[in-house]
Amino acid sequence: MIEASKRAQGVSYAIRDVVVPAKKLEEKGKKVLHLNIGDPNKYDFDTPEHMKQALYQAAKEGFNGYAPSEGYKGLRQEIVKREKKRNNVDYSIDDICITSGVTESLQILLNACLNNSDELLIPGPTYPQYTLITKFNGAKPVPYRCIEDQGWQPDVEDIRKGITNKTKGIVIINPNNPTGALYSKNVIKDIIDLAGEYNLPIISDEIYDDMVFDEKQYATATLAKDVPVITFNGFSKVYLVPGWRLGYIMFHHNGELDNVEDAFMRIARSRLCANSVCQKACIAALTGPQDHIKKVNDKLRKRRDFSYKRLNEIPGISTAKPEGAFYIFPKIETMDKKIWKDDKDFVLDLLKEKQVLVVHGSGFCETYGKDHFRAVILPTIETLDEAFNKIEEFMKEKIK
Amino acid sequence: MIEASKRAQGVSYAIRDVVVPAKKLEEKGKKVLHLNIGDPNKYDFDTPEHMKQALYQAAKEGFNGYAPSEGYKGLRQEIVKREKKRNNVDYSIDDICITSGVTESLQILLNACLNNSDELLIPGPTYPQYTLITKFNGAKPVPYRCIEDQGWQPDVEDIRKGITNKTKGIVIINPNNPTGALYSKNVIKDIIDLAGEYNLPIISDEIYDDMVFDEKQYATATLAKDVPVITFNGFSKVYLVPGWRLGYIMFHHNGELDNVEDAFMRIARSRLCANSVCQKACIAALTGPQDHIKKVNDKLRKRRDFSYKRLNEIPGISTAKPEGAFYIFPKIETMDKKIWKDDKDFVLDLLKEKQVLVVHGSGFCETYGKDHFRAVILPTIETLDEAFNKIEEFMKEKIK
Repeated sequence: MIEASKRAQGVSYAIRDVVVPAKKLEEKGKKVLHLNIGDPNKYDFDTPEHMKQALYQAAKEGFNGYAPSEGYKGLRQEIVKREKKRNNVDYSIDDICITSGVTESLQILLNACLNNSDELLIPGPTYPQYTLITKFNGAKPVPYRCIEDQGWQPDVEDIRKGITNKTKGIVIINPNNPTGALYSKNVIKDIIDLAGEYNLPIISDEIYDDMVFDEKQYATATLAKDVPVITFNGFSKVYLVPGWRLGYIMFHHNGELDNVEDAFMRIARSRLCANSVCQKACIAALTGPQDHIKKVNDKLRKRRDFSYKRLNEIPGISTAKPEGAFYIFPKIETMDKKIWKDDKDFVLDLLKEKQVLVVHGSGFCETYGKDHFRAVILPTIETLDEAFNKIEEFMKEKIK
Repeated sequence: MIEASKRAQGVSYAIRDVVVPAKKLEEKGKKVLHLNIGDPNKYDFDTPEHMKQALYQAAKEGFNGYAPSEGYKGLRQEIVKREKKRNNVDYSIDDICITSGVTESLQILLNACLNNSDELLIPGPTYPQYTLITKFNGAKPVPYRCIEDQGWQPDVEDIRKGITNKTKGIVIINPNNPTGALYSKNVIKDIIDLAGEYNLPIISDEIYDDMVFDEKQYATATLAKDVPVITFNGFSKVYLVPGWRLGYIMFHHNGELDNVEDAFMRIARSRLCANSVCQKACIAALTGPQDHIKKVNDKLRKRRDFSYKRLNEIPGISTAKPEGAFYIFPKIETMDKKIWKDDKDFVLDLLKEKQVLVVHGSGFCETYGKDHFRAVILPTIETLDEAFNKIEEFMKEKIK
């Protein structure tokens, strides 16, 4: 028997790992309500038609060969324009690199800047890849508290407490996965001031930037003054093409990140390029009609309102109100009663008893995510209603 | 200034790094003949029409959301059928994972099995990612000699000499990039016997398997008996879609690789999935007409014959005859005359003087690749003729 590597031994990915037992139920003929995966295209959302046409056009016109490692110039130019228009931030196309989803941007960035035993401050709870990829590089993810009572806004004082001489940067995810939090302008400014005080760069994941329900989303780079900001964004969510795997990274700084950016681009060259035809089609995403965005948000707002109301009606469950993205992160208030060993046990029990699939909160942070679960607010009101009714039955049966 | 990570400091990728000075020349209005990049679609080769149609169909039918982490079942089933038919090897679909090119298969595999200070035997010269990604995992790439006089067949005795108690596997690339070698059945069998003797798995990169000119390509798994084999393959080359970034890994063993395979699949889940629409289109690649393959090989054979003849006519240059893939790896016989500092200097000088771009051999192996260069045999005979004439002029001017 050949052994796996040590660094691979701890790798698990809650969001997809819970799919395995769900599949087994489905193979037995059970119908499972999937509230686990952040894929709008699995529900009643579809890619804008002109992007599909542009994809075909790109294939017909022969863009099936390798793209430049940093991505097609035309796409990077449109991203520069969007950043100027939406966020009033000036980028050069040379400070942008197109990658296979934000995942690859994150992988390459952390490869490029983390040494063994470095530390990275990440939100608690966080999107799990931040934890995983930090550990993979031999570094330590340090979660900071986000405040549930304040709609999961980051606790800036807790970020300060986490800073050591090994800290390499502060990660923020805004709007947030898994909580749906939209960070206030003041909180972002406070984080920027803190980063400036300690000469730390901010890594700002803004993949859900245009998916907001009530308030405006502020790009970190807009407010950053002299603090270096590395922003992740992509087409998966706002343009409804998660399967196309197209994200990008943008470096905003006055030279402080030259070495990291150079390392990033060298690693990017070694992995060749992101998907060529989809890159071409994403030019059409940025230059074509944008009216699907309002429609998506109108639908999501209704589903958010419904989810927020219904979940808070369920005994033993309470939840903060999401302001962006398409997640909700309720608390299981009865964990102290030892009905379930932990939140994963809750999730598996709910799946087994009611065939509703959500993701355990500890999969997003052992410290600040435990005793919660993440659900998507993407299904129709009818499906959400069915799922929440089942969760309500489940809770009533369990905590009686 | 924020420093890059130590592991990023050594990263360079010869094939794309030489593009930087070439671009500068082109920006000055110079015409550069590109013989550097293994992208058939940059020359007179095009993706089969039915694959483009299938791509559009997939987008229209709504396959724009995430795919399963291991890839669509339908695609893995077609790969199973191909392996049975072409190689008489039995796979389960569970032993196959679809990735963003072979690059990602390689990254995940080496993440999954290499610990610090482990060693991996790789061909000298090799495709550079084997060296890079091995080092990135803190492990040591150990090149074994391939024999230029025997058309760059691996030197099995040199592989044996390289085995230590830290060796984790033997990599073979067949047909080979950068040399164009097609490994003989006997050499593959000898490597299998050696691997069996030391309980080592073979990592067999067969992405060019159907691109051969005279002889049949043998899949390692076909001949492997009880030796575990991990095979890489993909659609980029044989199906002329390098920009689609779709490769796959296949595990062939009797349980010896269970831990590694499990780790691979867990890491694969954490990075979500490979491109969804292109996966659907690649089902059409395997089920649709295959007649483009013979046409491509007929073209390449002529270009190979021409390249082999012309390069051997140039003073100071000699070359072995490629039998597969689309590369040729000539020797610069006059390196001892100190006209150039090294092979990279030769490549940059040739670019500057004659605007012909090839890749320096040391980029593929410091030991066994140096004093060579890699050229692609993909351009038309006319373009190849023009390029070789320029190389001939260059050599005559330099070594007079």
